[in-house]
Amino acid sequence: MCQLLGMNSSAAASIRFSFTGFAQRGGCTADHVDGWGIAFYEATGARSFLDDGPASASGLAAFVREYPIRSHNVISHIRKATQGSVGLSNTHPFSREWLGRHWFFAHNGDLQNFHPPLDGSYLPAGTTDSEKAFCYLMQCLRQAFKGWQRAPTWEAMAPVLAACNEAIARHGNFNYLLTHGEALFVHCSSQLAVLQRAYPFSHARLVDCDLSMDLGALNGPDDRMVIVATEPLTVAERWEALQTGDTRVYVGGRLVWTHQCPHTRRFPVPGEALAEPVALA
Amino acid sequence: MCQLLGMNSSAAASIRFSFTGFAQRGGCTADHVDGWGIAFYEATGARSFLDDGPASASGLAAFVREYPIRSHNVISHIRKATQGSVGLSNTHPFSREWLGRHWFFAHNGDLQNFHPPLDGSYLPAGTTDSEKAFCYLMQCLRQAFKGWQRAPTWEAMAPVLAACNEAIARHGNFNYLLTHGEALFVHCSSQLAVLQRAYPFSHARLVDCDLSMDLGALNGPDDRMVIVATEPLTVAERWEALQTGDTRVYVGGRLVWTHQCPHTRRFPVPGEALAEPVALA
Repeated sequence: MCQLLGMNSSAAASIRFSFTGFAQRGGCTADHVDGWGIAFYEATGARSFLDDGPASASGLAAFVREYPIRSHNVISHIRKATQGSVGLSNTHPFSREWLGRHWFFAHNGDLQNFHPPLDGSYLPAGTTDSEKAFCYLMQCLRQAFKGWQRAPTWEAMAPVLAACNEAIARHGNFNYLLTHGEALFVHCSSQLAVLQRAYPFSHARLVDCDLSMDLGALNGPDDRMVIVATEPLTVAERWEALQTGDTRVYVGGRLVWTHQCPHTRRFPVPGEALAEPVALA
Repeated sequence: MCQLLGMNSSAAASIRFSFTGFAQRGGCTADHVDGWGIAFYEATGARSFLDDGPASASGLAAFVREYPIRSHNVISHIRKATQGSVGLSNTHPFSREWLGRHWFFAHNGDLQNFHPPLDGSYLPAGTTDSEKAFCYLMQCLRQAFKGWQRAPTWEAMAPVLAACNEAIARHGNFNYLLTHGEALFVHCSSQLAVLQRAYPFSHARLVDCDLSMDLGALNGPDDRMVIVATEPLTVAERWEALQTGDTRVYVGGRLVWTHQCPHTRRFPVPGEALAEPVALA
């Protein structure tokens, strides 16, 4: 299963601490070795870094960890391939432009028999179910706001996305992070954890490596941020598990919109049965 | 004026040597200090690196110089801002997806009174004339091949682009590099130089820094490549100056299509008069 990491914050913040732990999952503390990527929205625009090797051994990941990028919105993904070969064109986050905004998308899950009616507005460059789902989401937005010349507000887009999420999630687990630089849109089918950080900031320690940080020294009383990840990245902080069918929108480090679809179901994850407790004879 | 660098080759090749010299122009041997970017097509997909600081002092540029990326197609750009602020959203190469292919574009020149009728298929995220022109080129392609579900051949696209080039180049100098991973499309209004490298390969020495390389040791008898740059990057190799109005297409390291528009004119470049020879009294 792939791993997701997202951040949405009130002030431009560094993702270095969280990314350091997260990158360990790409080959060190977990076997997600089929590529990784990270997209940043900075004050002057967006950019992404993609690599098709394991994150824990990647020179580019080491570079990103050391690079002082400060961002309001970040999406990162570490891949364990289910559909599509290992390679750059199948590496998340995927990106598309709509109405003069760059959108980034990363997905965890496995969609089966998923053949959305793509009209050519957006088509996948690779061969993953994930990029197909992203193209379909963007097409749905484009159709819902046909003729618009500027991006709609997140309030207008959120219900459109929630309706798409319900339809797509019938094909398999559809845990995703989507952002256009202002809002972080999140959907949960099976597994996502959310952490709200706000004043007074605590001391945080990573799960995946021996590193801790005094968040109070880095953030002021007005700063707040949300971190979303497949599994909690830190100990001694209060991570909330999202529920199956949850669509959420975060803006400025706050939860601003939520929708619960009762029809969405959680699909079994391959290998999951092995993790069940076994009675010893 | 900005600086362009492009490569199209028969076999996946490294751009490190040329990029090392080229990156010097971003603040060292020339004053193009307003950002830089590079896009690579590798065997498994495309990616780009963008930075809004000077290339010669950039940690990311140093990283790219050392990173062993092998590619069939590369586009790079070093910016000296004419229109639009300094920032990531105004940093070339720009990218858009069309029919499942990622397209990258970099421009040198300055388009005035340029307000193409953009229909919303592609809209600029930044504020440059360059990105506007790119969106318009992509829109023209989309309109010319409406309803297609797969990318047309370069033979089909080249005349469409040549007609657009003529129209856009009425607004100012329109030197550009455009690629979708197979072909390198080039247009010249005022300044571009092309170098064909093929067997037997020579020894090349960079103009911008003290570095030389035995290209024969790196390439085999079947390898061939074309390098396109605003100004020649090496001494002792035969660079050809493109003519005003030239549209060219390179595939597999060869020139495969050419068109000359006699109506295209060269616009004066700011500061150019200073470089004219002056008679001493």
